[in-house]
Amino acid sequence: MNSFGTIFRTTIFGESHGEYVGITIDGCPAGLPLNIQDFIPDIERRKPGAKGTTPRMETDIPKIITGVFNDKTTGAPLTILFDNNNTRSADYEKQQDVPRPGHADFVASKRFGGFEDFRGGGHFSGRLTVCLVAAGVVAKKLLSLSGVHANATIVEIGGETDIEKGLQKAIDAKDTIGGIVQCTVSNLPIGLGSPFFDSVESLISHAVFAIPAVKGIEFGIGFAAAKMFGSEHNDALQNEKGITATNNAGGIIGGITNGNDLVFRIVVKPTSSTPKSQKTLNISSGQLEEFSVKGRHDLCIALRVPVVLEAVTAFVLADLLLQEQRIPKIINNY
Amino acid sequence: MNSFGTIFRTTIFGESHGEYVGITIDGCPAGLPLNIQDFIPDIERRKPGAKGTTPRMETDIPKIITGVFNDKTTGAPLTILFDNNNTRSADYEKQQDVPRPGHADFVASKRFGGFEDFRGGGHFSGRLTVCLVAAGVVAKKLLSLSGVHANATIVEIGGETDIEKGLQKAIDAKDTIGGIVQCTVSNLPIGLGSPFFDSVESLISHAVFAIPAVKGIEFGIGFAAAKMFGSEHNDALQNEKGITATNNAGGIIGGITNGNDLVFRIVVKPTSSTPKSQKTLNISSGQLEEFSVKGRHDLCIALRVPVVLEAVTAFVLADLLLQEQRIPKIINNY
Amino acid sequence: MNSFGTIFRTTIFGESHGEYVGITIDGCPAGLPLNIQDFIPDIERRKPGAKGTTPRMETDIPKIITGVFNDKTTGAPLTILFDNNNTRSADYEKQQDVPRPGHADFVASKRFGGFEDFRGGGHFSGRLTVCLVAAGVVAKKLLSLSGVHANATIVEIGGETDIEKGLQKAIDAKDTIGGIVQCTVSNLPIGLGSPFFDSVESLISHAVFAIPAVKGIEFGIGFAAAKMFGSEHNDALQNEKGITATNNAGGIIGGITNGNDLVFRIVVKPTSSTPKSQKTLNISSGQLEEFSVKGRHDLCIALRVPVVLEAVTAFVLADLLLQEQRIPKIINNY
Amino acid sequence: MNSFGTIFRTTIFGESHGEYVGITIDGCPAGLPLNIQDFIPDIERRKPGAKGTTPRMETDIPKIITGVFNDKTTGAPLTILFDNNNTRSADYEKQQDVPRPGHADFVASKRFGGFEDFRGGGHFSGRLTVCLVAAGVVAKKLLSLSGVHANATIVEIGGETDIEKGLQKAIDAKDTIGGIVQCTVSNLPIGLGSPFFDSVESLISHAVFAIPAVKGIEFGIGFAAAKMFGSEHNDALQNEKGITATNNAGGIIGGITNGNDLVFRIVVKPTSSTPKSQKTLNISSGQLEEFSVKGRHDLCIALRVPVVLEAVTAFVLADLLLQEQRIPKIINNY
Repeated sequence: MNSFGTIFRTTIFGESHGEYVGITIDGCPAGLPLNIQDFIPDIERRKPGAKGTTPRMETDIPKIITGVFNDKTTGAPLTILFDNNNTRSADYEKQQDVPRPGHADFVASKRFGGFEDFRGGGHFSGRLTVCLVAAGVVAKKLLSLSGVHANATIVEIGGETDIEKGLQKAIDAKDTIGGIVQCTVSNLPIGLGSPFFDSVESLISHAVFAIPAVKGIEFGIGFAAAKMFGSEHNDALQNEKGITATNNAGGIIGGITNGNDLVFRIVVKPTSSTPKSQKTLNISSGQLEEFSVKGRHDLCIALRVPVVLEAVTAFVLADLLLQEQRIPKIINNY
Repeated sequence: MNSFGTIFRTTIFGESHGEYVGITIDGCPAGLPLNIQDFIPDIERRKPGAKGTTPRMETDIPKIITGVFNDKTTGAPLTILFDNNNTRSADYEKQQDVPRPGHADFVASKRFGGFEDFRGGGHFSGRLTVCLVAAGVVAKKLLSLSGVHANATIVEIGGETDIEKGLQKAIDAKDTIGGIVQCTVSNLPIGLGSPFFDSVESLISHAVFAIPAVKGIEFGIGFAAAKMFGSEHNDALQNEKGITATNNAGGIIGGITNGNDLVFRIVVKPTSSTPKSQKTLNISSGQLEEFSVKGRHDLCIALRVPVVLEAVTAFVLADLLLQEQRIPKIINNY
Repeated sequence: MNSFGTIFRTTIFGESHGEYVGITIDGCPAGLPLNIQDFIPDIERRKPGAKGTTPRMETDIPKIITGVFNDKTTGAPLTILFDNNNTRSADYEKQQDVPRPGHADFVASKRFGGFEDFRGGGHFSGRLTVCLVAAGVVAKKLLSLSGVHANATIVEIGGETDIEKGLQKAIDAKDTIGGIVQCTVSNLPIGLGSPFFDSVESLISHAVFAIPAVKGIEFGIGFAAAKMFGSEHNDALQNEKGITATNNAGGIIGGITNGNDLVFRIVVKPTSSTPKSQKTLNISSGQLEEFSVKGRHDLCIALRVPVVLEAVTAFVLADLLLQEQRIPKIINNY
Repeated sequence: MNSFGTIFRTTIFGESHGEYVGITIDGCPAGLPLNIQDFIPDIERRKPGAKGTTPRMETDIPKIITGVFNDKTTGAPLTILFDNNNTRSADYEKQQDVPRPGHADFVASKRFGGFEDFRGGGHFSGRLTVCLVAAGVVAKKLLSLSGVHANATIVEIGGETDIEKGLQKAIDAKDTIGGIVQCTVSNLPIGLGSPFFDSVESLISHAVFAIPAVKGIEFGIGFAAAKMFGSEHNDALQNEKGITATNNAGGIIGGITNGNDLVFRIVVKPTSSTPKSQKTLNISSGQLEEFSVKGRHDLCIALRVPVVLEAVTAFVLADLLLQEQRIPKIINNY
């Protein structure tokens, strides 16, 4: 299913080379000011064009087709479309027999019986993350009502915390490269989430793995906890606001926000479409053959992930804030 | 919410020191042979008593109260209870004012307004994982119909792959310690899962973070992907069965199983209840004070996680197999 | 699936002749006072024993096994069991080959492949409505926080508004008989529900048809609207509280409560188990044969429906009030 | 929420006077042939223009923007838009202070805090039923794979089974009028649905009350069952295919299809927008005032309901057939 959320619920649709990609947000409170300008900054952050990102340029002006009236949300479903106006299908036409390494071509064909729109990755394309970003813009505006702020940044590329250095490795190798992105959310109230299936970790990881190319997530000190003693890992409570001396738990205990910053990191695999020549199977011939990518692609897809990561995090948290009645159903004073 | 799954749907309930903990499984196909003996091996694996685990002993004989007739599932909801017959509430009574470090006491009180059953962690207790294990037993029997097998093992304790050595560190330090557990699922068909919100990574991580103490998850090569080039990370397709030369993706591409083993690792934080003295806040006095644990607890909770991890993995996959019509709704030949 | 609700979510389980039937309520706010005595009045109302109802007597003392601590809800899942301590399985054993007319025996066998627990109707039994009543008790206590009150009464038996007269018809005919039950809910706030799929009519009818033997529902003037002109049917708004001169709409416009009493009626078919001899198919022989009921049954099942109808109505409305933030998540002053 | 369904899941969006109304269908199997021509017959049936219907004319050519490739469904979300190209907003602008009798204007304003798009009923408009019809077209194609066919017809207008006569009553009275629509579904397999919350009656009524103006539903003999004896109402089983001598149950026993035609009737209230002068409240002045409709409207909205009723029925049943694995996830031979 292509939907997520209980009260604030997003549904994405579209393919890389179709006419539009889009998103419907159901359950957004009425009265939230919203116009096209609100989307521009985050959409710009996601855009290709910077060093290490693909030269494919979309205009990416959102079309708000439903759910907004007089520049405010109406409480009815909010649907936003994005034109796919810069596609070169010819680049992709002939690759049907040769699944691109690291891509979903082969599994998509098995999953959807060969009926999938294979052009440019179709429904699997990173292109759809522009929809997630759009939902994130709406969710962030809701979060701001409670003073909550999400911020994601690249913290490592190719094993380097100096990001330029990491990118240079890939440029030198004529290859693509992976990275790590960290997200920090400040000002969350204590008490969001639940033990077990609706833990904050469960909900955030569910949404985060919806971002293509993410292969791991860790909260707080994360995997380093495996090497720690309990007395080191436990965060000592300092005051009634829940502030702890350390934040090894990343702001979540028992699945519930504890008053400290929510902190987590994700790993983004290297862009699958590398200019480097690789072996893959030719389905028709049954033979392995050399494959090299001709299309336009990102040197390091992690570079474009932070704004997407903030977005999915924002809509998970907006949903929890609504569930816990921390955001009203009608917004009269924004 | 305490439910998870679309077709095969589990709902857990109960508290550490209540009369029972239990689980209801809805959507299990009719005709699956099921009796109490089926549960014993996995329940034994979860049980405390081994080196590094708490001496609390439960009889842990499941009571199947609904959904089974003549030793087969009926297709109606399957409810299983476990007695809590070995509880010492007195150990916990007085700790209300002093939230135990690393535990959910403080956030639970904020989340549920002080109405939570605080005895032994209440609904937050690891005790409820016996219910997850029970659901896993049912799910594994369904998986076996397709030849699918999940296996989880401890791979690291306290930074040591020699597990005894890792435990000894904690014993020497009179402290508790964390660990890493790996799960491998073999024989999965190609084509389970979807891109975006129903990616296999999304669903598994959602369920996995329902296990108390888990703080991170990585699929395939995981966080190491951040240091890799695309040409290194991409798994080269070898044949039409989807087998790849490497399995850096951990068996999932584009959110979908690809015919290779599903492989992932989780980190389990050190047991919060450490015998070591720690500082924490006394809520009444507003002062920090020394705290030391008197109850019965695990030296390394990771040791008990593998069977729980297999269980949640199994019910995610059983649900996907049912959604993809790979398991029939009525089982006539088991 | 055997679950219903978005925030206030109920899951029922059990069979007529199993050890227990039960219900789990997830999402109930913490802090609601709740003890066994609260359940007695509604459970008494549902009980058999009155004129026209089956002599089968259950003790029907609820066992609250999870989710309540110190006589208040904890916010964790609330599970309630009822013993099935007065069952005579022998009455039912031999009927497997002869599906009882009007009962689910035949379809159950097709639906669940013959693995269903057929004793006394198994999971299809009206016995499970005691669980709905229990959920209703909790929901009604939540409604009372907003001053909302649901009241259902029999309005017609066998075409007679003098109910005794209707029952006498059936007694004279040595048969069973149908009836109509009306439910009125007062004090609902304006603005619950939504147009389309979450209309109040959609949600209430969904829950109402979960009650066995219900075959129709109409809101307000209902089917009589088919004979009316628009100018007759439209309810003229009288004041800003939404009060209208008539209530043909039954308190719902555009799927949303409008400030008037919510009023609807349901039809309950005659008890299928009639003492009268009937023809039905013997599956083994393939022949039609005479069938007459020997077990204990209700002359008019409609008589026992009002309290069940109030219950399902109450949990639909409690869920909507929670969704609209009209009931707090923590109840500090009951 | 504006979504419905478990596997075959529809989400509607849009307002009467926005740029588009639309629908996203998630979970449609891949490989179903689908093109614009498929939609024309049902959209034509819904269209205004016939005697008794509004003269507002929409082109109503569906735009399939996602989920179809090479004229077949891809298995990805299927989104269909309809232009709103014939709207006269000026007709509606000034009515904000005077809620139209029988319409949702007043409750919408309370529900959405005055932020709703009030033009032409906004999101409450019957305009959105064109989206339901579109989803129905897709669902019907799936049903046809199993030979299942849904057919709805007007059976009564203004109390007359001679429909022309019923309409004439309204024309003579210069008023609008209600009606009854019956739906029959043939060739359903035995065993769809479940007892309790997923009864076929629960699911169909849930979807049916999503159609604006529906105020009641009855299955089989429906409300007449209240006057019947059990021996009269019970349908006697005739053969192993489930065929019964009568069909008072309307094809559903215990919430489950029983092999006979599924038969139900709904009541559609008279069009609220009647040309007749009526009293209503002027919110600004607090005074009652005369109100008469100037816009274009239907004399009898029931006339346009049959195709919408078939549509929602079809998507409920398609969902159940998918859940019961009676429709494959990939359609190779249509």
